[in-house]
Amino acid sequence: MTIGILGTGMVGQTLATSLLAKGNQVMIGTRNVADTLAKPGNPAMGTQSFSDWHQNNAGVQIGTFAEAAAFGEILINATSGMGSMDALASAGVDNLGDKVLIDIANPLDFSKGMPPTLSVVNDDSLGEVIQREFPRLNVVKTLNTMTAALMVNPAAVSGQHNVFVSGNDADAKEQVKTFLTEQFGWAPGSIIDMGDITTARGTEQLLPIWIRLYGVLQTPMFNFAIVR
Amino acid sequence: MTIGILGTGMVGQTLATSLLAKGNQVMIGTRNVADTLAKPGNPAMGTQSFSDWHQNNAGVQIGTFAEAAAFGEILINATSGMGSMDALASAGVDNLGDKVLIDIANPLDFSKGMPPTLSVVNDDSLGEVIQREFPRLNVVKTLNTMTAALMVNPAAVSGQHNVFVSGNDADAKEQVKTFLTEQFGWAPGSIIDMGDITTARGTEQLLPIWIRLYGVLQTPMFNFAIVR
Repeated sequence: MTIGILGTGMVGQTLATSLLAKGNQVMIGTRNVADTLAKPGNPAMGTQSFSDWHQNNAGVQIGTFAEAAAFGEILINATSGMGSMDALASAGVDNLGDKVLIDIANPLDFSKGMPPTLSVVNDDSLGEVIQREFPRLNVVKTLNTMTAALMVNPAAVSGQHNVFVSGNDADAKEQVKTFLTEQFGWAPGSIIDMGDITTARGTEQLLPIWIRLYGVLQTPMFNFAIVR
Repeated sequence: MTIGILGTGMVGQTLATSLLAKGNQVMIGTRNVADTLAKPGNPAMGTQSFSDWHQNNAGVQIGTFAEAAAFGEILINATSGMGSMDALASAGVDNLGDKVLIDIANPLDFSKGMPPTLSVVNDDSLGEVIQREFPRLNVVKTLNTMTAALMVNPAAVSGQHNVFVSGNDADAKEQVKTFLTEQFGWAPGSIIDMGDITTARGTEQLLPIWIRLYGVLQTPMFNFAIVR
């Protein structure tokens, strides 16, 4: 299938690599293609430059947010949460149309230091903000509760663990559940349908404990499991 | 040991029943003893009256917040989160002293309808508010991420699952971890020390997804597991 990914950071790269390997046509979108290709990596963080990544993933097309939004049958918001609304505005309401948008972003605000706070919280969520601003889009919040390597390879941690899905449109959620299973290998029984997009409040509010657990466990390779 | 429990609701009752059965001396504290004993149950919610509960748990002493705080070597805040600060003020700083306070409460605000919001959130937590207001207390936030029946009986759900501990004082946290193991049967390996009391932000912010999961799963008998 054709997939448009908004966001060229580590999450966008990880998803693009995985989806390309699965035989999809993938375009990754950014604000300014030349700037993104010129951006250096951050060796201290262990991240390569976008252009180094792209050399190894040359099958992934690069375009603007608008081009990626127009390109994909299904769209993925992998921008940083604080930049998501600008990215989507730049993508343009006509290009977004009534597509399914898989929203992976979390509204983490690092501007006040560590740990980050949530810029949208409690009685609202980024998922809801996107759905309100782009009412024709079918926003499905998912995958935002784990590190990117685990999103695309749930078997990387052992045992049963879960991914949550929130969205207003039942058909869109079914499409996303199938996508999670077929593209990334999520067992249907590990996908928990939380309900409408307001339930994204709960999954976005997992980030504060996720960030602290990352510190305690000294690895991002963990996930939440709901045990009964 | 002697244990003072603040709060006579279902959580306080469940803890008191369990701790009494373990051979502890338990006093449960309330604002007004006579009012609590006269309060009817709520058959629609499946809850018996406090006095009916007490007839089956006559070994549990009943007192004011101040009396329960003075009574216990270790204290448990099992009040509703919105009432915790009033209850602790009523207990009195001299009775609270420098004891260990196991803080189970969540700052859930039901005044704006369902689902509740958190009255303290994001860059603060109820655990921190209590620690700031009562700096001599050794506040340890724990057990607040699950239903009461599971707090006192982790084996009630199968498999490995976790309880989180947050607090500023290392000795107090060790006391509480031992308490969780000896009184309730939490395996040491299932107890995750999150760090200082600011990490209570993360565990309190598990409540929004907990409440939604309760709706999805149609049972409160579930818990979070951190899977690696």
